[in-house]
Amino acid sequence: MIEQKFPLRDEDIPRQWYNLAADLPTPLEPLRTPTGELVTPDMMAAIFPMNLIEQDASQERWIDIPEPLLELLASYRPAPLKRAVRLEKALDTPAKIYYKDESTSPAGSHKPNTALAQAWYNKQFGTKRLTTETGAGQWGSALCYSCAQVGLECKVFMVRISYDQKPYRKILMETWGGTCIPSPSTETEAGRRFLEQYPDTPGSLGMAISEAVEAAVSDTSGETKYSLGSVLNHVMLHQTIIGQEAKKQLAMAGVKKPDIVIGCAGGGSNFAGLAFPFVNDKIHGDEITIIPVEPQSCPSLTKAPFTYDFGDTAGMTPLLPMHTLGHNFVAPPLHAGGLRYHGMAPLVSQAVVEGLLEPMSIPQLECYAAAVQWARTEGPICAPETSHAIAATIREAKKAREEGREKVILFGYSGHGLLDLAGYDAYFKGRLEDYEIPEEEFRKALLSSLEGLPKAEGKKTGKWG
Amino acid sequence: MIEQKFPLRDEDIPRQWYNLAADLPTPLEPLRTPTGELVTPDMMAAIFPMNLIEQDASQERWIDIPEPLLELLASYRPAPLKRAVRLEKALDTPAKIYYKDESTSPAGSHKPNTALAQAWYNKQFGTKRLTTETGAGQWGSALCYSCAQVGLECKVFMVRISYDQKPYRKILMETWGGTCIPSPSTETEAGRRFLEQYPDTPGSLGMAISEAVEAAVSDTSGETKYSLGSVLNHVMLHQTIIGQEAKKQLAMAGVKKPDIVIGCAGGGSNFAGLAFPFVNDKIHGDEITIIPVEPQSCPSLTKAPFTYDFGDTAGMTPLLPMHTLGHNFVAPPLHAGGLRYHGMAPLVSQAVVEGLLEPMSIPQLECYAAAVQWARTEGPICAPETSHAIAATIREAKKAREEGREKVILFGYSGHGLLDLAGYDAYFKGRLEDYEIPEEEFRKALLSSLEGLPKAEGKKTGKWG
Repeated sequence: MIEQKFPLRDEDIPRQWYNLAADLPTPLEPLRTPTGELVTPDMMAAIFPMNLIEQDASQERWIDIPEPLLELLASYRPAPLKRAVRLEKALDTPAKIYYKDESTSPAGSHKPNTALAQAWYNKQFGTKRLTTETGAGQWGSALCYSCAQVGLECKVFMVRISYDQKPYRKILMETWGGTCIPSPSTETEAGRRFLEQYPDTPGSLGMAISEAVEAAVSDTSGETKYSLGSVLNHVMLHQTIIGQEAKKQLAMAGVKKPDIVIGCAGGGSNFAGLAFPFVNDKIHGDEITIIPVEPQSCPSLTKAPFTYDFGDTAGMTPLLPMHTLGHNFVAPPLHAGGLRYHGMAPLVSQAVVEGLLEPMSIPQLECYAAAVQWARTEGPICAPETSHAIAATIREAKKAREEGREKVILFGYSGHGLLDLAGYDAYFKGRLEDYEIPEEEFRKALLSSLEGLPKAEGKKTGKWG
Repeated sequence: MIEQKFPLRDEDIPRQWYNLAADLPTPLEPLRTPTGELVTPDMMAAIFPMNLIEQDASQERWIDIPEPLLELLASYRPAPLKRAVRLEKALDTPAKIYYKDESTSPAGSHKPNTALAQAWYNKQFGTKRLTTETGAGQWGSALCYSCAQVGLECKVFMVRISYDQKPYRKILMETWGGTCIPSPSTETEAGRRFLEQYPDTPGSLGMAISEAVEAAVSDTSGETKYSLGSVLNHVMLHQTIIGQEAKKQLAMAGVKKPDIVIGCAGGGSNFAGLAFPFVNDKIHGDEITIIPVEPQSCPSLTKAPFTYDFGDTAGMTPLLPMHTLGHNFVAPPLHAGGLRYHGMAPLVSQAVVEGLLEPMSIPQLECYAAAVQWARTEGPICAPETSHAIAATIREAKKAREEGREKVILFGYSGHGLLDLAGYDAYFKGRLEDYEIPEEEFRKALLSSLEGLPKAEGKKTGKWG
């Protein structure tokens, strides 16, 4: 029998997170205000607890995971590593395809890895409730689940159109005891203003962020904090258990190192979680091709510049040094809602600047074709985001066949698609299309977004490569 | 760190199925025709392949699982065994609660264990396509997935009201390449007759079975067969890998034997899969309380007699010796669609007759309360069927607390509820109720169902207990 799975025991869950910031050849540029000043920890303290703010700025290479948090993570970790033997056979490839399956968490994706951590650190800090926004619903679900685990209240502002189109997501959050309200809402000043201006608005992630941040800041007791599911350094950090586990499991499979590591990238947390431990190996000499995959129509890494930009559409966050399409850029209505973000995590962006990563973009229809081939060979139904990693894997496996090389490919299976089946239906009915965004439009969104903002260096000053 | 999971490797998947028929103190009574004659294998050959018909009648205790089928099962097996430490804590119970998690299969339940086997044996036999019916959609999904794995066509007749209410289930089946049509349909004579008689009918499982069987039988090439997801002996057989794996995993956890084994029971396959290997131990002297749990409003094991009855509503199947509410009994619109069956597998029924099992029935609202407590402690969202096992577990864990005894409880987590969230919503909105069915109504359905049919003995003739 060919071995298809490489199960670790609870004691094999990594005890530390890996912080790529400590190993990047060029140090990360700092967060800034729109006028160019440095953002201090105190300025962040209104929305985040100090223990996470400190973690976000840490230069330590390894950071201990507290024991009680390990206990919580052990409810669904270690996550499976599997070999996709049926897909290999269907592709007639000499490549060996392994995937790290993060879909087995209660919330169905990798998101709880940081949601549990953030909920736990907030609980330690004395926070009583968390607010956040959610687009497609993955992050909001993960945070509600995690708040139930540690005993926090959770309020999620969900983009109204998603709220209406995906009723199951809302029920999921309520089952975990969270509150989910459509945004814009009448609960915040920002929400009321949006509603007055655009009574029929379908909402947007930008609006929802504004509401969630306001809801946290306006609680003068300081007991309400805000939580973000991607982009920030501490979020990337919390996800690195994915790649560390994968390494142990590849060793069980007799693999010394993968030749190719692939993950889909929206804000960057899924990709970073799998890839950063391998980026570390690459910095220290291993030959690995590491590929973040993004949608062709939201190509921050493959088409956009590295500079300072806001993390949200409304311009309420500090400026982040990153690859960005401009915070005014509105991605087409892709089904991969988690990959529609205009920017990219600073740590991932800087790793691209260093030449450590080889970003790839793929059109939506190719991704759905890959998802269906996956379902009919391997079985599971993948999330639309995950389909980007599968499509890239299929490209690389075919290349390996052409080259006649027995490469080892590892990709990140970020989540299941059981609450996203409407996208599959639209695909089967021929209702999906690929969006070609004209160069001109990209430029316009960029220029209007970045006007007056300071520029980031985006330089490679270190010694790597 | 408390160990919460007990992972087996691929090589630990059981190599044989366990056949309880070989160990039952009293032999199973045979299948009969409505006039009382014995049903011969030849009579079954129009709808099932001979290899499965033989398996169904086998008296062998252990039956080898073919190697290629093991490879298929290894795509998601061994299934996890976990300890519910957070639920234990919430209940403040000295009991140790373990659960066997069958929700991690691609179709989200235990159903693929037999769907893969049936698809594989049909493929070996030369079958080109399978037909089946589905109510809530779990079984139809599992068979479509399995047919994609071995290369068979699959057509599923889905009860119209479910087809309309659960569009995601249909998309799931289509993603795996299956065809799903609402029943009654115009594709069969039976369907056309139903539609003529009742143009606005919401459909029923009975009608859908009639259509699926007709669609198989009417293909005169013999290349189309019918497949059933529960009740029959060979289905119980295929599921026994669940309990066998659980035993190995309990041993890893340092548990010699569980004190209590619990599984929800509709047609009986989930319950049998987990419980039969432990029933074997009980026959051979172990002290174990083994509890099949059914809905209070569909109580075949706790309220209905053991006798001969049809397996379907329309009276097209052979007569089965079983606990039955009567094939004319229509269960209330419970959300646990998989537990709305009027009968119970003959093997499970006979084990009840022998006194080997201690059936329990639980009302719907208690089950949903248990499901929500589960989600907020352990995390995952369970299927409405599974919530019955959780509710029974909570009852037993509380009893252990009252008795101050450190009992070991093992229950079957038959599937996830991610495509059943509407039931949770109805529960939160106070729209669910418990159905008390008057004694009179039970009796009426029974009498009208069993009129003129031969009686089964329902006797315990063996030596056990």
